[in-house]
Amino acid sequence: MAYFTFENKQVWYETYGEGSPLLLLNGIMMSCASWTEFIEPLSRFNRLILVDLLDQGKSDKLCEAYDHAVQVRLVDALLNHLNIERLCIAGISYGSEIGLEYALDHPERVERLMLFNATAASGPWLTDIGNAWNLAVDDPMQYYYTAIPVIYSPRFYKIHNDWMENRRALLTKTAFANEAWMEGMVRLTNSSANYDVRARLGEVQCPTLIVSCRQDYLTPVEEQQYLAEHIPDSHYVTIEDSGHASMYEQPTLFASLILGFANHAKRRYGIV
Amino acid sequence: MAYFTFENKQVWYETYGEGSPLLLLNGIMMSCASWTEFIEPLSRFNRLILVDLLDQGKSDKLCEAYDHAVQVRLVDALLNHLNIERLCIAGISYGSEIGLEYALDHPERVERLMLFNATAASGPWLTDIGNAWNLAVDDPMQYYYTAIPVIYSPRFYKIHNDWMENRRALLTKTAFANEAWMEGMVRLTNSSANYDVRARLGEVQCPTLIVSCRQDYLTPVEEQQYLAEHIPDSHYVTIEDSGHASMYEQPTLFASLILGFANHAKRRYGIV
Amino acid sequence: MAYFTFENKQVWYETYGEGSPLLLLNGIMMSCASWTEFIEPLSRFNRLILVDLLDQGKSDKLCEAYDHAVQVRLVDALLNHLNIERLCIAGISYGSEIGLEYALDHPERVERLMLFNATAASGPWLTDIGNAWNLAVDDPMQYYYTAIPVIYSPRFYKIHNDWMENRRALLTKTAFANEAWMEGMVRLTNSSANYDVRARLGEVQCPTLIVSCRQDYLTPVEEQQYLAEHIPDSHYVTIEDSGHASMYEQPTLFASLILGFANHAKRRYGIV
Amino acid sequence: MAYFTFENKQVWYETYGEGSPLLLLNGIMMSCASWTEFIEPLSRFNRLILVDLLDQGKSDKLCEAYDHAVQVRLVDALLNHLNIERLCIAGISYGSEIGLEYALDHPERVERLMLFNATAASGPWLTDIGNAWNLAVDDPMQYYYTAIPVIYSPRFYKIHNDWMENRRALLTKTAFANEAWMEGMVRLTNSSANYDVRARLGEVQCPTLIVSCRQDYLTPVEEQQYLAEHIPDSHYVTIEDSGHASMYEQPTLFASLILGFANHAKRRYGIV
Repeated sequence: MAYFTFENKQVWYETYGEGSPLLLLNGIMMSCASWTEFIEPLSRFNRLILVDLLDQGKSDKLCEAYDHAVQVRLVDALLNHLNIERLCIAGISYGSEIGLEYALDHPERVERLMLFNATAASGPWLTDIGNAWNLAVDDPMQYYYTAIPVIYSPRFYKIHNDWMENRRALLTKTAFANEAWMEGMVRLTNSSANYDVRARLGEVQCPTLIVSCRQDYLTPVEEQQYLAEHIPDSHYVTIEDSGHASMYEQPTLFASLILGFANHAKRRYGIV
Repeated sequence: MAYFTFENKQVWYETYGEGSPLLLLNGIMMSCASWTEFIEPLSRFNRLILVDLLDQGKSDKLCEAYDHAVQVRLVDALLNHLNIERLCIAGISYGSEIGLEYALDHPERVERLMLFNATAASGPWLTDIGNAWNLAVDDPMQYYYTAIPVIYSPRFYKIHNDWMENRRALLTKTAFANEAWMEGMVRLTNSSANYDVRARLGEVQCPTLIVSCRQDYLTPVEEQQYLAEHIPDSHYVTIEDSGHASMYEQPTLFASLILGFANHAKRRYGIV
Repeated sequence: MAYFTFENKQVWYETYGEGSPLLLLNGIMMSCASWTEFIEPLSRFNRLILVDLLDQGKSDKLCEAYDHAVQVRLVDALLNHLNIERLCIAGISYGSEIGLEYALDHPERVERLMLFNATAASGPWLTDIGNAWNLAVDDPMQYYYTAIPVIYSPRFYKIHNDWMENRRALLTKTAFANEAWMEGMVRLTNSSANYDVRARLGEVQCPTLIVSCRQDYLTPVEEQQYLAEHIPDSHYVTIEDSGHASMYEQPTLFASLILGFANHAKRRYGIV
Repeated sequence: MAYFTFENKQVWYETYGEGSPLLLLNGIMMSCASWTEFIEPLSRFNRLILVDLLDQGKSDKLCEAYDHAVQVRLVDALLNHLNIERLCIAGISYGSEIGLEYALDHPERVERLMLFNATAASGPWLTDIGNAWNLAVDDPMQYYYTAIPVIYSPRFYKIHNDWMENRRALLTKTAFANEAWMEGMVRLTNSSANYDVRARLGEVQCPTLIVSCRQDYLTPVEEQQYLAEHIPDSHYVTIEDSGHASMYEQPTLFASLILGFANHAKRRYGIV
């Protein structure tokens, strides 16, 4: 648990346990604190590393427009700071994009890559959804109703209705009512506007786990099918009964997939 | 093309062609004018009937809260007005719900039912999406970005990007900028709040076509799977490569399915 | 109902009704007699044409190895014999392949094409299944157990268990016990060995309906996805709750899709 | 690597590594030798246990008709022999059924259960497929063509065509040409005839991973959907791009899922 300095910004990171290193990269609305429940299962065999990207959690704000590149540099600086030469990276949504770009820029450092609820490119559809979020920033309740049903599945809403209502009460009084936090969300959202690594997918060198969720209506299964078709050593599964927020909707599967794929060291099976 | 009077309201309807009657029921944002391109193919063998429900198109506004029941009564009044005893009904989204409720209330009058992008019940998830729409009514651009990506698929956005941008320019200057129209949209949206016919699905007596769209993120495929499992004489297909707006995204399949199922008069095959 | 002569062989065909012509092409084990239940619904608006391909039904046997080309020529000869210049063609399985090849060879004659349970190419997997069928020809019961579960879905087996058992009793005493019929089946099966039109799919000029069945384990959905991606004006739907034998498992949907698509004359929607 | 005596039969088992015990249960045609490539990755954190069920591998034949019950007793005897009180069990196909029944009979002993390519019941469809296999036992080539395309996916056939041809050459000269082996296969196949645990699924007490494969045409996805809906603490994923033989078609995912789920000790997430 500490800060390190990256391009004159203070960046918050946490590490837990010992073993081969495993970095988790946050979704856009998340922070290190979002992983509390996952620390114990995911640090059992690995040195688990969490980090707040710029405009997330306890890290500094970056009060100007930016794109993913700065977050990718931040990851690289963190690994240098920790003297980690090679590691496994798992990311969800926004974090999966940063992870994928990191693996493209630094193939020699990534042992295995795990992409949950990922896309290879922002397109006009995702941009319109981002526009809806950005236009709702001044009204916490509107932000909630605009963003949350795109993230959680109808089934999760039905089963966990009380939890969802508590979450609405909480979020609309805290994060969504916090002007500085919302400005960070707008910048993070806009930082994906030009994201497009489709032409580079063939360059991914490490074994890559690609995870779809059947009811993901923000990065739908077609996006991960595309990734699976174009990343050379890809391994593709679908979590049934989950929306975009796979770590909340199916935490056991989320953690099991990371635990298993990160620690499955075998590169080639002699079967075929 | 005429008005008739229903419960002191003027209701606009249109009829085309001759043959066994076929009623099309509009989705929530639609009106008779939305079907222009479908008139010729769907009036080829049938007397095609279009109608603006209350708060739609040229029909009167209903300036108070209501639920689906009044729209179901409107359909019944229209059929009485036209002296139609028995007919086929096809509906999309909101219209499919009205059609389904009509078939439950008046089983003796419905020959065949066709449900596109339907659900058996509004739940907390759909209600939250409706809340997002309702909170965006004062800003046409916000309404567009909030509602439209839920209706059209990512693929449609990519293929028809120019058309979508024109549509945004048009809608944000016309309907979405029209206060009376938006008030109608809010009432229509709220009229579905308590919609739930799950317990009655076993009572549907006519052959029923159920149509899912693979990329429908407003009434996802799980909703139609439920309908297909619970409606006794159901026939279930999925349109691939379409979002919620099946009539716009796949008009040929939309029209072909109605044309074929409405005119397929055979009730039982002796095969099994 | 008559024979006509094609390359010194007698070919049986049947026609029903009036209207724009619609040709149905049989699956491999089928004959004109298989369509009995479909004659009334499919001749309502169209001149329905049925034909037994070589080695099928009442048509002559072709006691030598052949490939699809002869069946494609047979279709052309039949249309010339009937003075039909232009028509709609629907085929299931083997018949869909012949129909697709006919549309490729004679684009000027095919108005609309409907492919049920189709593939663009036989591959090593389908060839091995054909090998299993061919090696079982001497034992009617073995032929039944080898071929039938690949054709009907588990769900159909469960729902129609009595019908299936009657069908087993019937088939193993009649067709599957008939040496000449089985020799024809072997030749028909072998005639698909080198079928591969993948490189030509971009040349299909007419609107084409492509129909998958979710539980089709002989020509699985991936095959039709390929067709839909490569045929320019394709329209793709999936019948849920059906195996390979869509005409038996979901006859209402099978007939409705043909009825609707064949009579949907509109070529372009002005929507987008 | 040793034998132990179970009901007067010699049963072969193997153990590897240290840690909390993990038992792998073979599919019907498999033996301990089938897992060679998986020993290293799956014994990294666990004491891995392999066993040949009766009529498999080096274990004795059971030259009379039997059902699953004897294999379930065998598993219990093995665990007693090894003084294992509680463990994780993973099974594929036939082995998943034995594992599921063991968990139902001995809930106090099963920590976590992992079911690959499983079904809750044999039905008439699966029985007919078994009949086809049983009628083909006298001809190795016929057995190959009858059984193998149901086990491997079309995609696997295409990608690994050479390997498949070598496998055909090998299997038809060894196992499939071995009369005693084939008699064992018939008994194993018949032992599933009355398998049906549907009514008991609600009694499964441990966290259960359920794994479908998208192109599994022997135990199709509908079977695992049923399991996932009825086992209380189930966690459901689908391996894309795999047929029934998931361990051969997607070995990295197969091993990763077991490695992760078996070692994910957390029982409840406090998220919801």
